[in-house]
Amino acid sequence: MDIAKLREAHPDHWMRAAAIRTLTLDAVAAANSGHSGMPMGMADVATVLFSKHLKFDAAAPTWPDRDRFILSAGHGSMLIYSLLYLTGHKEMPISQIKNFRQMGAKTAGHPENFLLDGVETTTGPLGQGIANAVGFAMAEEALRARFGSKLQDHYTWCFAGDGCLMEGVSHEAIALAGRQKLGKLVVFWDNNNITIDGEVTISDRTDQVQRFKAAGWHVQSVDGHDPEEIDAAIAAAKKSQKPSMIACKTHIALGHAAQDTSKGHGALTNADQLVAAKKNYGVDWGPFEVAADVKSWWEEVGSHGRKSRVEWEARLEEQSDRRRTEFTRVFAGEAPKKLAATIKALKRQISETKPKVATRAASQTVLEVINPVMPETFGGSADLTGSNNTLTADLGVFDEKNRKGRYVYYGIREHGMAAAMNGLSLHGGLRPYGGTFFCFTDYARPAMRLSALMKTPVTYVMTHDSIGLGEDGPTHQPVEHLAICRATPNTLTIRPCDTVETAEAWELALTSQSTPTVLVLTRQGLPTLRTEHKNNNLVSKGAYVLAEAEGKREAIIIATGSEVHLAMQARETLQSAGIGTRVVSMPSMELFAEQDDAYRRKVLPAGPVRVGVEAGVRAAGWDRWLLGERGREAKQAFVGMTDFGASAPAEELFEKYGITADNIVAQVKGLIG
Amino acid sequence: MDIAKLREAHPDHWMRAAAIRTLTLDAVAAANSGHSGMPMGMADVATVLFSKHLKFDAAAPTWPDRDRFILSAGHGSMLIYSLLYLTGHKEMPISQIKNFRQMGAKTAGHPENFLLDGVETTTGPLGQGIANAVGFAMAEEALRARFGSKLQDHYTWCFAGDGCLMEGVSHEAIALAGRQKLGKLVVFWDNNNITIDGEVTISDRTDQVQRFKAAGWHVQSVDGHDPEEIDAAIAAAKKSQKPSMIACKTHIALGHAAQDTSKGHGALTNADQLVAAKKNYGVDWGPFEVAADVKSWWEEVGSHGRKSRVEWEARLEEQSDRRRTEFTRVFAGEAPKKLAATIKALKRQISETKPKVATRAASQTVLEVINPVMPETFGGSADLTGSNNTLTADLGVFDEKNRKGRYVYYGIREHGMAAAMNGLSLHGGLRPYGGTFFCFTDYARPAMRLSALMKTPVTYVMTHDSIGLGEDGPTHQPVEHLAICRATPNTLTIRPCDTVETAEAWELALTSQSTPTVLVLTRQGLPTLRTEHKNNNLVSKGAYVLAEAEGKREAIIIATGSEVHLAMQARETLQSAGIGTRVVSMPSMELFAEQDDAYRRKVLPAGPVRVGVEAGVRAAGWDRWLLGERGREAKQAFVGMTDFGASAPAEELFEKYGITADNIVAQVKGLIG
Repeated sequence: MDIAKLREAHPDHWMRAAAIRTLTLDAVAAANSGHSGMPMGMADVATVLFSKHLKFDAAAPTWPDRDRFILSAGHGSMLIYSLLYLTGHKEMPISQIKNFRQMGAKTAGHPENFLLDGVETTTGPLGQGIANAVGFAMAEEALRARFGSKLQDHYTWCFAGDGCLMEGVSHEAIALAGRQKLGKLVVFWDNNNITIDGEVTISDRTDQVQRFKAAGWHVQSVDGHDPEEIDAAIAAAKKSQKPSMIACKTHIALGHAAQDTSKGHGALTNADQLVAAKKNYGVDWGPFEVAADVKSWWEEVGSHGRKSRVEWEARLEEQSDRRRTEFTRVFAGEAPKKLAATIKALKRQISETKPKVATRAASQTVLEVINPVMPETFGGSADLTGSNNTLTADLGVFDEKNRKGRYVYYGIREHGMAAAMNGLSLHGGLRPYGGTFFCFTDYARPAMRLSALMKTPVTYVMTHDSIGLGEDGPTHQPVEHLAICRATPNTLTIRPCDTVETAEAWELALTSQSTPTVLVLTRQGLPTLRTEHKNNNLVSKGAYVLAEAEGKREAIIIATGSEVHLAMQARETLQSAGIGTRVVSMPSMELFAEQDDAYRRKVLPAGPVRVGVEAGVRAAGWDRWLLGERGREAKQAFVGMTDFGASAPAEELFEKYGITADNIVAQVKGLIG
Repeated sequence: MDIAKLREAHPDHWMRAAAIRTLTLDAVAAANSGHSGMPMGMADVATVLFSKHLKFDAAAPTWPDRDRFILSAGHGSMLIYSLLYLTGHKEMPISQIKNFRQMGAKTAGHPENFLLDGVETTTGPLGQGIANAVGFAMAEEALRARFGSKLQDHYTWCFAGDGCLMEGVSHEAIALAGRQKLGKLVVFWDNNNITIDGEVTISDRTDQVQRFKAAGWHVQSVDGHDPEEIDAAIAAAKKSQKPSMIACKTHIALGHAAQDTSKGHGALTNADQLVAAKKNYGVDWGPFEVAADVKSWWEEVGSHGRKSRVEWEARLEEQSDRRRTEFTRVFAGEAPKKLAATIKALKRQISETKPKVATRAASQTVLEVINPVMPETFGGSADLTGSNNTLTADLGVFDEKNRKGRYVYYGIREHGMAAAMNGLSLHGGLRPYGGTFFCFTDYARPAMRLSALMKTPVTYVMTHDSIGLGEDGPTHQPVEHLAICRATPNTLTIRPCDTVETAEAWELALTSQSTPTVLVLTRQGLPTLRTEHKNNNLVSKGAYVLAEAEGKREAIIIATGSEVHLAMQARETLQSAGIGTRVVSMPSMELFAEQDDAYRRKVLPAGPVRVGVEAGVRAAGWDRWLLGERGREAKQAFVGMTDFGASAPAEELFEKYGITADNIVAQVKGLIG
């Protein structure tokens, strides 16, 4: 690569892009870790994008109508940090760059949305960013349709590397974007032919251009170091009605001794090579320095969007009070005032009509009343609409012909759906929910973990939650998935036992500001157990006494979801035998763990024997409640699963695995002795 | 669709294929559940493939050189069951078909490899089968290179639906197969334009032909109901040096009232419509019946391969004793006799040299001695070879130029790698292992669950197992992943504390016959703690006393992996303070749980206070050991993580989260009071 030739061809551009490269080299060298090569390779594309096309105002990084920039190749985090510093982002003084990857810095190893405005989404796990970007672009279309182009009209830009494009989730994202004709989404492929193990060709020979075309994208190829080619391609991409991919031929770690090698992917820390690279670039500034004219040019770039932003604010002011308030409310993620009353009215009605329905059907009942009063809900399913009960009458289907639709046919793409929902949520203005079978949280797992880490209040509607699924057999019968969700920090797992608890669960999900919720719902019908109306949301306590012991309290049965009615049946038998039995419904272990000691002891007092019942593995958090939090409280037993299930009618499976009222009774009697 | 025209065009073929269709309709109707449409749509392709091309012998379904047939669209399980019944598979009498989806039947809702020879792999979770098929095809290439085409020379055939092709894992599989030029892999796409939610076009408009071409495949398109077109395409596919995709335009639920609708995907149980469909087909046989001439034709098909099989057996006999024994050994999945001695010798050496290395490096040390004595190991990494330490000097890289290579550059495809490893293992003759960061088990999770369900003894080499990863931050720092692995049935999770335990862990992994193993390994260096050589494999007990208390035993510290040396440091301090402290190393909770009561009580006696230490969440099974299995044994505390980690140097993170010897000491002292 003839660096001198590049410098000469576009001398001003060269020095501006060089600032990204030298800051990256300096920061990585100081941290003695990180990834130098990607920012160095994509600096030219970033410089053109940020200076000529990206609508942003460094002084207002959360302005709702800004363009969104997503670095899917998150290991190249110094690209973002350099750009934020150069353009004058207030949270990015040079001290942050100097503190790259150190304790407490906003400049984390990978960009973290919760640490820094200006980072739209946490990236690092490859492929997530491009799939988030699809959600961002859908959100823009939906909100433009709802609020008009005066309030929403922006692009979503994404940088993706070979790693992102090899990950399966990229396929789901690309196909979904192509189907949805997301014309304001532009992906730049950092085509540098290098991965950690060597040249890309040792593991991949995909023709990415042909691949994106096959998915319905507008595709261009450019020299990723030629600012004019880049600029022209971006201009063309903006005009396309299809999502655009720009294949940028780049050199990883451009101008460094490690250029075009897998070594160049990682931390380039050799001091002599660093000096040589800077010499190569023709810069004479010291570590963490940038020439004053270059810095001021970049700061000017950082204020390019100020006018647009101020005009946008004026347009927002011009809206009717109602419209402005509504826009502001949905972007703040606040539930409408009507929600609480709507839920209460439904609960009261249900406690009277006492339907016997599956909790997945209960969930639809709730959505039927919520969706009309909460226009920011944005539903969907991974091709299981009728099974997940996620579509309600008034939503309409979101597609290129109907951007006002609020329901997405995500296709058989659980992972892409979850990652898109993260993007929808992070964009602001929408509250996404999406369904699949609980067992297939496995497919969505990387994005579900990121919901928790990024604090996106997405709702996962997970139906067919146990062997109660029946004949489809063990590939479709979750047994360890409650354990997975409960073990994941900042994930609210709720397994309601009837329609009333389902309504309370939805209320918690839709008022959450920073925690994703997993609703764990049955395929099979369940009786209404909450037949006495309470205004309070009992699920919010995590666990509560559903039925008190009569006479001396000898046993406590703790159950969740579809096993609560078995506990109630068992209680009846036990009471008949003179054994005073309390039933505790425990829809959410996480919420119960958050209650104070006194409440927990009140619900689970020491003394009586304890039997836990759940059609899943005991490892899903049961030891704490059964052995007793202080480890000396009760004799105990667990009725549940120890292995994968089997293919047979659901009722027979519950018999086979001993998850029955009879067995609960036997366990209690055995413990009492 | 003019059924009469199809019948007339190929009357004999028609009736043979109709047998698949009517058995499917009868079985689903009897079960009142299942999926009728797919077998009805693909019956013609299956009939041509099985009768004219598939090398198989119904009397010997596990013959090592048979062609492999994989139904990736596993919900269409009646396709396989019909074919096995028709061709005379001994485990598939008509009673099994009548018992479809019932308790104890081999005809489970989705095909289960562990229930039935003839089912090569469990399918149902979409996309898995096609990704398994890539592993099967790689295995064939590798074994043909090792043992010659006299012993290994077969095709791998796969039926995949739109669901399979929408799932991200299909992208990883297709790209890997294209890169590896797996010429003996043929995929049939059931192109029926229907998913559960409606027409495919509501969620997908991918040009699949162009997509497969972009991945380097040979692609043809045929009418999936024209036996001549199908036959010609298969013949051409067999000649191609690339993997082949045959796009088969089909009609789901052909000839039934629900044809070409999403209703046709599921259970078609209406009695009148069933009769009408049979009339449409021109068959007059009753429920679960097939005309005698059709059945005998199919039985003849089932014996087509008998001659090949007998000839193959003769060729095996002609091999040298050594070669035949070796072939038989690797297909039986038996470890070589040398393995045990090799491991012992290494352990002895390590206990003397006492290296201070990361357990990932320890793992490489073990592989360096194992791989030469165990030629069936087949390694790889998802683009983290240098980080996972999975490549040893003698393996060689497996690709189209070197089929004797035993190491695969899987690319950034954790999910595709895991699914391919399932195929490699199920094929027989190889023992696959593959590496990625422990956090990215998230990406591989659906296939890892299937390893457990299918009982494939795959080894997952999962490095960078905690906040010890350091600066890359929380997206790369597993905290809940031990919980996930431990909660999954039939999954052996081992987190060794030093090189000796790592060697013992590998020995268990490589001698496992029916359980996958997850090796959980550190990035950071650890001292050798097992400095006294023992011939016995102590890891096999799950937990054991690493250091006994001196004086009165007042405390037990239980730790795993990188925290065991912290426990040892804490013990030293406590002993100095006169507090008798036992340290228990617990590399595998699963194995410890399998020991008898007496052993468990010996290791963890009631009385002393207990402190558990692990750089992960307590929910990963700790309550059982800390609260005590009988819930009344000890005061206890846990030193670990409660939230996601952060980006900073590893040592600072251990300080920040209090996972230190000092804190362990403080906890013990606090409990003793």
